[in-house]
Amino acid sequence: MSTFGTIFRVTTYGESHGKSVGCIVDNCPPGLPLVEADIQTQLSRRRPGQSDLTTPRDEKDLVTIQSGTEFGITLGTPIGLLVPNQDQRPHDYSETDLYPRPSHADWTYLQKYGVKASSGGGRSSARETIGRVAAGAIAEKYLKLAHGVEIVAFVSSVSNVAMPFIQTEDENAFPEGFWEFLNAITREEVDKDPVRCPDNEISEKMRKRILEVKAAKDSVGGTVTCVIRNVPLGLGEPCFDKLEAKLAHAMLSIPATKGFEVGSGFKGTTLFGHQHNDPWVKKENGILGTKTNNSGGIQGGITNGENIYFRVAFKPPATISQAQQTATYDGEDGTLAARGRHDPCVVPRAVPIVESMAALVIMDAVMIQQSRQSAASLLPPIPNLPPAMVGAVQSREQKKIRTE
Amino acid sequence: MSTFGTIFRVTTYGESHGKSVGCIVDNCPPGLPLVEADIQTQLSRRRPGQSDLTTPRDEKDLVTIQSGTEFGITLGTPIGLLVPNQDQRPHDYSETDLYPRPSHADWTYLQKYGVKASSGGGRSSARETIGRVAAGAIAEKYLKLAHGVEIVAFVSSVSNVAMPFIQTEDENAFPEGFWEFLNAITREEVDKDPVRCPDNEISEKMRKRILEVKAAKDSVGGTVTCVIRNVPLGLGEPCFDKLEAKLAHAMLSIPATKGFEVGSGFKGTTLFGHQHNDPWVKKENGILGTKTNNSGGIQGGITNGENIYFRVAFKPPATISQAQQTATYDGEDGTLAARGRHDPCVVPRAVPIVESMAALVIMDAVMIQQSRQSAASLLPPIPNLPPAMVGAVQSREQKKIRTE
Amino acid sequence: MSTFGTIFRVTTYGESHGKSVGCIVDNCPPGLPLVEADIQTQLSRRRPGQSDLTTPRDEKDLVTIQSGTEFGITLGTPIGLLVPNQDQRPHDYSETDLYPRPSHADWTYLQKYGVKASSGGGRSSARETIGRVAAGAIAEKYLKLAHGVEIVAFVSSVSNVAMPFIQTEDENAFPEGFWEFLNAITREEVDKDPVRCPDNEISEKMRKRILEVKAAKDSVGGTVTCVIRNVPLGLGEPCFDKLEAKLAHAMLSIPATKGFEVGSGFKGTTLFGHQHNDPWVKKENGILGTKTNNSGGIQGGITNGENIYFRVAFKPPATISQAQQTATYDGEDGTLAARGRHDPCVVPRAVPIVESMAALVIMDAVMIQQSRQSAASLLPPIPNLPPAMVGAVQSREQKKIRTE
Amino acid sequence: MSTFGTIFRVTTYGESHGKSVGCIVDNCPPGLPLVEADIQTQLSRRRPGQSDLTTPRDEKDLVTIQSGTEFGITLGTPIGLLVPNQDQRPHDYSETDLYPRPSHADWTYLQKYGVKASSGGGRSSARETIGRVAAGAIAEKYLKLAHGVEIVAFVSSVSNVAMPFIQTEDENAFPEGFWEFLNAITREEVDKDPVRCPDNEISEKMRKRILEVKAAKDSVGGTVTCVIRNVPLGLGEPCFDKLEAKLAHAMLSIPATKGFEVGSGFKGTTLFGHQHNDPWVKKENGILGTKTNNSGGIQGGITNGENIYFRVAFKPPATISQAQQTATYDGEDGTLAARGRHDPCVVPRAVPIVESMAALVIMDAVMIQQSRQSAASLLPPIPNLPPAMVGAVQSREQKKIRTE
Repeated sequence: MSTFGTIFRVTTYGESHGKSVGCIVDNCPPGLPLVEADIQTQLSRRRPGQSDLTTPRDEKDLVTIQSGTEFGITLGTPIGLLVPNQDQRPHDYSETDLYPRPSHADWTYLQKYGVKASSGGGRSSARETIGRVAAGAIAEKYLKLAHGVEIVAFVSSVSNVAMPFIQTEDENAFPEGFWEFLNAITREEVDKDPVRCPDNEISEKMRKRILEVKAAKDSVGGTVTCVIRNVPLGLGEPCFDKLEAKLAHAMLSIPATKGFEVGSGFKGTTLFGHQHNDPWVKKENGILGTKTNNSGGIQGGITNGENIYFRVAFKPPATISQAQQTATYDGEDGTLAARGRHDPCVVPRAVPIVESMAALVIMDAVMIQQSRQSAASLLPPIPNLPPAMVGAVQSREQKKIRTE
Repeated sequence: MSTFGTIFRVTTYGESHGKSVGCIVDNCPPGLPLVEADIQTQLSRRRPGQSDLTTPRDEKDLVTIQSGTEFGITLGTPIGLLVPNQDQRPHDYSETDLYPRPSHADWTYLQKYGVKASSGGGRSSARETIGRVAAGAIAEKYLKLAHGVEIVAFVSSVSNVAMPFIQTEDENAFPEGFWEFLNAITREEVDKDPVRCPDNEISEKMRKRILEVKAAKDSVGGTVTCVIRNVPLGLGEPCFDKLEAKLAHAMLSIPATKGFEVGSGFKGTTLFGHQHNDPWVKKENGILGTKTNNSGGIQGGITNGENIYFRVAFKPPATISQAQQTATYDGEDGTLAARGRHDPCVVPRAVPIVESMAALVIMDAVMIQQSRQSAASLLPPIPNLPPAMVGAVQSREQKKIRTE
Repeated sequence: MSTFGTIFRVTTYGESHGKSVGCIVDNCPPGLPLVEADIQTQLSRRRPGQSDLTTPRDEKDLVTIQSGTEFGITLGTPIGLLVPNQDQRPHDYSETDLYPRPSHADWTYLQKYGVKASSGGGRSSARETIGRVAAGAIAEKYLKLAHGVEIVAFVSSVSNVAMPFIQTEDENAFPEGFWEFLNAITREEVDKDPVRCPDNEISEKMRKRILEVKAAKDSVGGTVTCVIRNVPLGLGEPCFDKLEAKLAHAMLSIPATKGFEVGSGFKGTTLFGHQHNDPWVKKENGILGTKTNNSGGIQGGITNGENIYFRVAFKPPATISQAQQTATYDGEDGTLAARGRHDPCVVPRAVPIVESMAALVIMDAVMIQQSRQSAASLLPPIPNLPPAMVGAVQSREQKKIRTE
Repeated sequence: MSTFGTIFRVTTYGESHGKSVGCIVDNCPPGLPLVEADIQTQLSRRRPGQSDLTTPRDEKDLVTIQSGTEFGITLGTPIGLLVPNQDQRPHDYSETDLYPRPSHADWTYLQKYGVKASSGGGRSSARETIGRVAAGAIAEKYLKLAHGVEIVAFVSSVSNVAMPFIQTEDENAFPEGFWEFLNAITREEVDKDPVRCPDNEISEKMRKRILEVKAAKDSVGGTVTCVIRNVPLGLGEPCFDKLEAKLAHAMLSIPATKGFEVGSGFKGTTLFGHQHNDPWVKKENGILGTKTNNSGGIQGGITNGENIYFRVAFKPPATISQAQQTATYDGEDGTLAARGRHDPCVVPRAVPIVESMAALVIMDAVMIQQSRQSAASLLPPIPNLPPAMVGAVQSREQKKIRTE
């Protein structure tokens, strides 16, 4: 399906060969200041041709708002967004007409639909992600303005060049200082380097690895880590739409992803409960918080107010210009060396896509929870509930629970 | 939300303290033979009190079909399923009234809803999963009968006791023989041991680890790996409902999960494209297939006919009876030693839950794809499409594409 | 589909022959006092066997809450509701096995599903409506408590015995006093008579007509009119989910309905704009309202704060015990005189069903609008909008629009 | 919400003042021949400025396909459609800045969103319907090609000038010959006259009435009747998405609608069961059909293969240039004489909108039913079902029910 979200809904369209790509954002809150520049920033971070690490396809990816705003203010009506496809090349007969690319969507699209776009990746092209990024930028602007939410993603590994917190030998899930690092990292730091890894030394190694791989007409995978700060309490809709479930859905819908882990993730499965549990403490604002954050800001599928963080696995891109032994559509063995323009490693450009999908998930969860809270707040106070149902005094006051 | 699926939809209800738990399955295909015993098998594999590795809460979890069938045949109308709660204990005042359990849903439920169930886990209790397992059993029966689909999950690690294919030092994603193993493993083999790990030696170590942990009033995490065989071609709905995205959503909606990886997963991010790509070969049935299966049976979000396999991370259960330094709802420091009945390790009982959620995802994807294929099959043939749009002759014939 | 609603969602199950009928209500606001008696009242108004005007099938229709509440308070988790089927009769071979009933669902269910319930109406039985009525009672309780909403439906015509406001010869849509009548009518007045028409004289004629029809082994149609008072401003989700569109959907999903009109309805199509338009006036509470109410409380798909009212057309029940010339499933001509228990006229029992569906529509619209308003209220003030975008001063203050 | 449909989903965007209006059509079957001309025909029938009966706003409403097709064939991916807004006029200060128009959406939009478009109708403008009509044209093309479905709407009344079948004094719901007329009517006949009423004499009277009303700076209502022929059997999804419920939803989502009736409609409520029931007969194709068609082609919410027909009520347009006593946004009494371009009567231009919404409903119902049928067809045969569950032999064979 091409729609994501329950209340804040995004529907995308577009593929590599069409006139444009874009999306419709439904149920954006009215009264949000919004102009093209708010959206363009993330699109430009995503666009191809940014550096020697990315595909040379040259697209400016300039967005126009078609509807839903007036005088720079959202009206609450659907926001239509459009980005023209410019650097299309005429399809010329090539090996990829005869050969489905290994590990690519060519053959599965054909099997699913019985017909497929003749050139490029069609809907499986990375251009599909433009609509998501544009929509995510709107969600992000709202979340920033209304809740101070900050979302920062960065490249945490390329091939086996990884930031130290990954596969630590420590007996805890993470080395000391990791959560503090997540608390401080900014997009500016991430963008200092075209690899988008905020550790200079590691970044330099990653860059070398990508250029080697590019020279070898090969490709390589990596991971993106993302932190979401200042998340409102109480987001996530058990049982099926727990917040981590929606984040996992969102992330695994990004092309080339193979894995997702939140909080302590896979490493956390090796720990004991007494190590893994995050003890409660009273925070400066008087509200409970946790001392450690193995939970990744989510307990029982619901945000606890701590930072959410997660990591997404991206496989090496399938399209490589190295020769590969494979078979034609007809099943005859042969050799394919793909032509065309492609990224040797997707993670640098995936950073804003991960951020955008995170923003869409949080935004929709916010609107659903606001519906519930607002509805509950209009009910009369409830007398005589047992204390176990309403927690203790402090908690009760925080939430203005309607008990007497 | 408590509904999962677009066409084959499951809606669940129920928590630990209520009269019953259950679900409604909407849009099950009519004409499917279905009696309680078809559902009971998986419920009994999930139920507590099966062995010394699980919580002593004793529930028979006997299901009754309330509607949607007659003479053992589904009518196509909603199937109501009900499982009574039997072994409820009266809530007596305890520490957990004062203390939100660390890393548990107690506090977040209270923050989200402003009120929570007074005892047990309420809706965050593992009893919530009964509805999913019951519904999944129906999906599985259809998939088996109509498509020969086989779904087998097993425990692949407990703490750091792991089957050898995990964190292999091999330069490939998996050691030799792994995919063959996935091809052969059966539920009978999995169930030989209460841990549900099909490797006897490893299983014995896991069992010891769990019993040690139980004795120490602690808990421990683990992973469950699942394979889905004989999956129809063409399942999955790009761009947002790619099959891996729906699987990730489904798995991360299971309580206590922290991660998901499909195919080569996180290990695959360290590989190069030429290693990771799965070359095409003509299979015995004359259809293309892949020589290797790093893709995990999914390309571009769509099934390619090879086995799907994935791994799910479960953290150590939050409820432990060991004393923990933490804070009360009021924010006062103190010590909590939880009473009550709980599992020291959830993975053995999670096996049928993982299988059921996998069945729900595949079933819904099948029904959506059947809608498309059936709709497309009624259109007249299309003349003169360029070959790149319809693949080559063999593929064209497989799909009975309507070109002339 | 068996689910209705976007946020406040109801999923129903059950048919005439199963163990029970019921529903799951998802996303009910937490903190609502709710016990079985709150739901039973409307179920008892709907149940068969209430008077000599209804089917003699005797069902007490006693509801139990399976989940979602504790100590009589909703937890925000799904509310499972169950009503046992008691007065089932064993299916004995009868004419209806050979003959699909004319204008009944027998044949279409068989065509749709390829199989059907052997006796009674299966899912097309009126027992299906129990789940809706139970869920609607919950919605109604919330709406009453939080917004003072009042929903009153009544029988406005049986056969050609109609209350005077229907098919008035007046040049306006309605005779004088009609809107005042709607403003005052109560359920108590409606229930004084088993026909549920609040006009004694007309009611007596209706009752006679129904008994004549019953004696003649025939059936007869009628209409139900419903008013919703104290509706919050701003409900309804253009463009596709305008409030009247959702009401129409809800009403036409009730068995045996053939039409829906809101406000001036079909009569209004004969009027001129200058007659039909409802002029604005300042109301006592200082807010704008309308002098007349041809709009039926909805403008542009959105509630304006005035009473909503609408009328629903019910055809004569299809099952009659009079002999009918028709054909068997095999296509052979023959005569069918249906046995079994059935209502000669459905409108008296339809009254609570119409009210419940109205409550479900309003409740869901409230929760969506509360989500938007709550989200918008957290944005910073907007400077310098042109007056045409924010209305005039009074309106601006009413809505606390965030302009400066 | 701006999305309609479960599988065949349309999402629209756009208002009167933006750059463009349009939609995204998701899940269109792949392999459908589709070019702009297929869509333009209905857009041109809907566009303003067609005759002296419509608003003088001059828009060519030329559509372009942005995505989802290649070489004139649908790919199964989302189809983006875009229509530029051309004849926009700069907003100049006017009375409508001070006065919310009576019975218009001005005030309710402002109350709902807290902000509104400064000029024209914003999202409540009739321009919003362009996306629906464009999407409906695609649905219609599929339905025609795959099932031979024909959809024809026409103006059945303007003010009290009505075609004879409306408010017949006959004791039946319709005068003789009505169903035969519905069986024969074509779009060509409807379009002979700009009023779009296929009865020349009545049409002439309607035209006069509209021109009188226009001259009087007033407006007038009317009704549109629509017939759908060659509808596949078995469409409609009880219990909430009965086919008539979805049609009612679709029709009442069209601006200015106040009522909907299907089959015998409101007139049918006055009939007795023995008059209203449609007896079964064996049709020429060997399948059962009905002798009369009071049901309007739908029984139990499911299509029976007979023609579907229904009637939609449109109120007089709210915007009139005659002076009206009303109040300003501030609540001060005053007089409004609206300027701007508007239609004196919407029904002629509503004809293609009604057809398009009908097509969207049928298309989505077809895809859901195809999913079920296709899923059921893969199950093994069921032995020994009682005859009452599978109807008689002929019916069984028609549906290839899998009994033995």
